[in-house]
Amino acid sequence: MAAPASCPLCATEGGVPIWRGPRLRVIRAQEEGFPAFYRVVWNAHAAEFSDLDAADRQHCMDAVVVVERVLRERLAPAKINLAALGNMVPHLHWHVIARFDWDSHFPGAVWAPAQRPRNGEREAEVAARLPAIDTALVQALDAWQQHPATE
Amino acid sequence: MAAPASCPLCATEGGVPIWRGPRLRVIRAQEEGFPAFYRVVWNAHAAEFSDLDAADRQHCMDAVVVVERVLRERLAPAKINLAALGNMVPHLHWHVIARFDWDSHFPGAVWAPAQRPRNGEREAEVAARLPAIDTALVQALDAWQQHPATE
Repeated sequence: MAAPASCPLCATEGGVPIWRGPRLRVIRAQEEGFPAFYRVVWNAHAAEFSDLDAADRQHCMDAVVVVERVLRERLAPAKINLAALGNMVPHLHWHVIARFDWDSHFPGAVWAPAQRPRNGEREAEVAARLPAIDTALVQALDAWQQHPATE
Repeated sequence: MAAPASCPLCATEGGVPIWRGPRLRVIRAQEEGFPAFYRVVWNAHAAEFSDLDAADRQHCMDAVVVVERVLRERLAPAKINLAALGNMVPHLHWHVIARFDWDSHFPGAVWAPAQRPRNGEREAEVAARLPAIDTALVQALDAWQQHPATE
């Protein structure tokens, strides 16, 4: 599918670039209140997950799982949230979000109204670990790219 | 993983049962304002997508894609939303939601605050098509189960 001139995920990385492969990239989002929020962005313009063929879908979800596993190992979050919405930016991107029982929206979705004030101290603890997590993501994604079987 | 006694997706179908396979089931959710809202529920208790092995993950996402394609073909929605959150019920289930530019929350997430009043007439038009969609889902899921390649 041709890239619409107005698509921000065709025109820009969409966040802090962490890793780039031929078919997809991983960026770190910068969403207030949710420091451990990454996105797996399909490089080519595609609106829906089912626009990808079977091999590409598997490749995409394998990358999502690599990111999910690093977040679980490094942060032991209460839950991982995965979502491909694309209502605002219909260019396939998977949100991979580490959620904590102390975060402002838990157990609601990050898109729902806040349930409590933000915990700056806890957020800072997570943020302090992001450089090491970014490094771990690069290592895990490189290893996966070289040996794609993830199980 | 053993089923916690309190898990509602271990104890109940979780919605209107549409289709059941050995590893997963498809139910229709009954969420106010979003008539074309289905869920792919993993039958065994698993909290995170990455708790599944590679074959099970592929099986799960293939089912999600079968549902997504039927919704696209039957309803031509503005967007399909996919999400595995599980903050409230940490038993793996994928939301597969047909979104419309007239729905009360678009382009926000269904978990976000409403952006406009509900459109009862349009909702009823979608609801009237659900029996045919349910039938199409059963046919598509049966066909997939017999010939799992979806591409």
